[in-house]
Amino acid sequence: MSEEDRPSPDPVRDMSPDQFRKWGGEVVEWVARYLETVEELPVMAQVRPGDIRSQLPQSPPEGGESMEAILADLDRIIVPGITHWNHPSFFAYFPSSAAGAGILGEMLSAALNVNGMVWKTSPSATELESTVLDWLRQMIGLSADFQGIVYDTTSVGTFHALTAARNAIPEWDVAENGVAGPDAPRLTLYTSEHAHSSVEKGALAIGLGRRGVRKIPVDSEYRMDVAALEAAIQKDRAAGFRPFCVSATVGTTSTTSIDPVDRIADVTEREGLWLHVDAAYAGAAAILPERADILSGCNRADSFVMNPHKWMFTPIEFTAFYTRRPDALRAAFSLVPEYLKTAEDASVTNYMDYGIQLGRRFRSLKLWMVMRYFGVDGFRSLLGEHMRLARLFASFVEQDSRFEIAAPVPFSTVCFRLRTGDDDNSRLMERVNATGKIFISHTRVDDRFTLRFSIGNVKTEERHVRDAWDLIASEAG
Amino acid sequence: MSEEDRPSPDPVRDMSPDQFRKWGGEVVEWVARYLETVEELPVMAQVRPGDIRSQLPQSPPEGGESMEAILADLDRIIVPGITHWNHPSFFAYFPSSAAGAGILGEMLSAALNVNGMVWKTSPSATELESTVLDWLRQMIGLSADFQGIVYDTTSVGTFHALTAARNAIPEWDVAENGVAGPDAPRLTLYTSEHAHSSVEKGALAIGLGRRGVRKIPVDSEYRMDVAALEAAIQKDRAAGFRPFCVSATVGTTSTTSIDPVDRIADVTEREGLWLHVDAAYAGAAAILPERADILSGCNRADSFVMNPHKWMFTPIEFTAFYTRRPDALRAAFSLVPEYLKTAEDASVTNYMDYGIQLGRRFRSLKLWMVMRYFGVDGFRSLLGEHMRLARLFASFVEQDSRFEIAAPVPFSTVCFRLRTGDDDNSRLMERVNATGKIFISHTRVDDRFTLRFSIGNVKTEERHVRDAWDLIASEAG
Repeated sequence: MSEEDRPSPDPVRDMSPDQFRKWGGEVVEWVARYLETVEELPVMAQVRPGDIRSQLPQSPPEGGESMEAILADLDRIIVPGITHWNHPSFFAYFPSSAAGAGILGEMLSAALNVNGMVWKTSPSATELESTVLDWLRQMIGLSADFQGIVYDTTSVGTFHALTAARNAIPEWDVAENGVAGPDAPRLTLYTSEHAHSSVEKGALAIGLGRRGVRKIPVDSEYRMDVAALEAAIQKDRAAGFRPFCVSATVGTTSTTSIDPVDRIADVTEREGLWLHVDAAYAGAAAILPERADILSGCNRADSFVMNPHKWMFTPIEFTAFYTRRPDALRAAFSLVPEYLKTAEDASVTNYMDYGIQLGRRFRSLKLWMVMRYFGVDGFRSLLGEHMRLARLFASFVEQDSRFEIAAPVPFSTVCFRLRTGDDDNSRLMERVNATGKIFISHTRVDDRFTLRFSIGNVKTEERHVRDAWDLIASEAG
Repeated sequence: MSEEDRPSPDPVRDMSPDQFRKWGGEVVEWVARYLETVEELPVMAQVRPGDIRSQLPQSPPEGGESMEAILADLDRIIVPGITHWNHPSFFAYFPSSAAGAGILGEMLSAALNVNGMVWKTSPSATELESTVLDWLRQMIGLSADFQGIVYDTTSVGTFHALTAARNAIPEWDVAENGVAGPDAPRLTLYTSEHAHSSVEKGALAIGLGRRGVRKIPVDSEYRMDVAALEAAIQKDRAAGFRPFCVSATVGTTSTTSIDPVDRIADVTEREGLWLHVDAAYAGAAAILPERADILSGCNRADSFVMNPHKWMFTPIEFTAFYTRRPDALRAAFSLVPEYLKTAEDASVTNYMDYGIQLGRRFRSLKLWMVMRYFGVDGFRSLLGEHMRLARLFASFVEQDSRFEIAAPVPFSTVCFRLRTGDDDNSRLMERVNATGKIFISHTRVDDRFTLRFSIGNVKTEERHVRDAWDLIASEAG
């Protein structure tokens, strides 16, 4: 370890550009080797709680250390505790994988390290964000009256939708009065039993409480029951509550079911409620012309959220939020102190006005690079292939009499289970995950323990899906 | 442009490891050259609104493009619209700069692309997060009963503090009932006139409204007036409000003033209120033993937030949040649907339980690398030097009779102004920023337009500060 590999002392300096060349080269080689060999690693980390932490010093180093030592510990300590989301046999949850262009985009963002809180603090960050979100809007067929903003996660996107919806009710000044106190309206939010937990979490955060959340039953295909929605709204109105928002889902987390957004929009328009659509995972599928129908009705929504970091191969985190009512979002979140005023405020978008976060990483750069690298055709090819592979996997399940399909397969996620019962399914999942060869997860459908097999990694090929089924069928014994 | 530089068709594939080697090498060289030459670029982007967007296509590309074309557009279109936060003469706002080790850490995070929502989805992400936050806790002298979690921004950290505080009031079940209804308490939050706008934004988000926020006056050094705080609480109690939280600041945004946290803690303990401390920028200064006193009283706080992405050379975004009441935070945010339950839930930390965000990027990796690269001594050297340079700059101001210092300089930020008036100061700022040689920002102090000169870039040296003063003095004409 040579002296020049450490920060130079007195006063300390960061690594020089030449040192960056050297260590950047090492890290690129590390990543290339990782991408080359990730299939040989166990998908799910095979460690016990505390195994990683016990290998790390309990206190920070007093003196600077060499990059060589740091990268050695990355291999020795950190990698064994990684569950490899970038592994082509990661079939759990909704997969998120990072394409090469996205990985390079993240490094460029970190090097530029801009904070795009206002236009002036990096015009390119603001204007590229507007541009790529408009590209994405066109790709999935949302109408031109939707304006986009990038958040980190769908949970935060949904939180913003609920906040804007809450503050948009006309008869009560929420920004001034809040929703507290004896005169405040008792707001109620509607979503399906199968909606993501982030909807309820958002409702609790903005002050509604569980008492303000109505979970509407679903039909036999796990879609929101619109008649039940209407009945719940009428019942609440009669009881003195103030319905204000419906959150529908295109591609629910358990089964990827699609709520009937068009019929829900009939209700929200008639009742004067904000309609939010969570299409976190499945929204990307609308890039395929033959699947554009999945967003039917979404152009009538007030807000819409989807995750390019899920099924568009963009490194986590990147959530695209759209609203047809940007003024309502702005009214809920704009607070401009003197030190953030700029001469351009009247003529530009300052994205800080549209969210709780002031600091804003340059996230649009990575999506821009991934979009250009693949092009619209590339996404169509990859997503179409993943959906084909999911149908293939479902056909394997159907041909094995020990198993059953638990829900329709509209996208790239298959819910299935052994017919015998919860314990057998739970044990089967633990066994296949313990092999390290694949990683699958579970949910409950019709109150039964159900396995989920979701395809979304940019590197997943037919052989990975066939091998996965062979393993599952064999471990089912 | 050769064919292998594009994604391969039918079915489309991501770039191969060898292609990643090639383009990764190009990007490392791009970054090294950027770090080498950033001083030659204008700090503040010299473009007009729309200049960047008008050069970008209005629609996404149908076919995939080469990395060569993408990187060419980075130079041609994007870079001219960048305000260079990584420029050593960036003195605006609070500077955020990315050390080399942090840039490489971001690339590794993107390549691993893990989502650390629960322990199982990457044990290393959870356990390294716990470890580096404990290291940082020791470095700044917080007591061992603080438990840490990483969020993206301080705004989100403060929002979490307020939510936990709101839900922790014992006499009303906020998670169940929300804050609305005839019996709900009318909650009031206290912070100083000089607190960051994120405190009020958080209060509006969680449903308090402006009516629930009390901005306490400051003393002659811009610190919260504790007698006024006590009076406001008593007045509110008498009027039937329910005080629940005080948010104090160590290092306010305008002047970096330090609220008297110890005396505020006397009040919050006596009154039974949650005490939150926002030390976003200045908390890092406590790494210097001679400045540990700035966090006096903070060990009595319920929650505390600081930003390694501000003054610890870690790429944006990274906010360290600490609380002595993790159970209250968890109670406000934990909602575990079936599909996120794991066998280890009883024996591990699942960070998703402590926040609104479910998806969680592997942020601790970059801070771990930066901490090890510099060591505690390295941070002491860099931060000590920045504070010395701020005193040097303040001495230049004091020696020029046209100018005056507008506030004490406890850290690395100098508030100063021409004695003549707001318009002269505003024009001076616009003139020096238009040169592209330095970038400074402003605030209002005592209702006067005041210039801010803040030092925090890892590459800032004495020559940059001397040149900046020479430019300012010369442009002041």
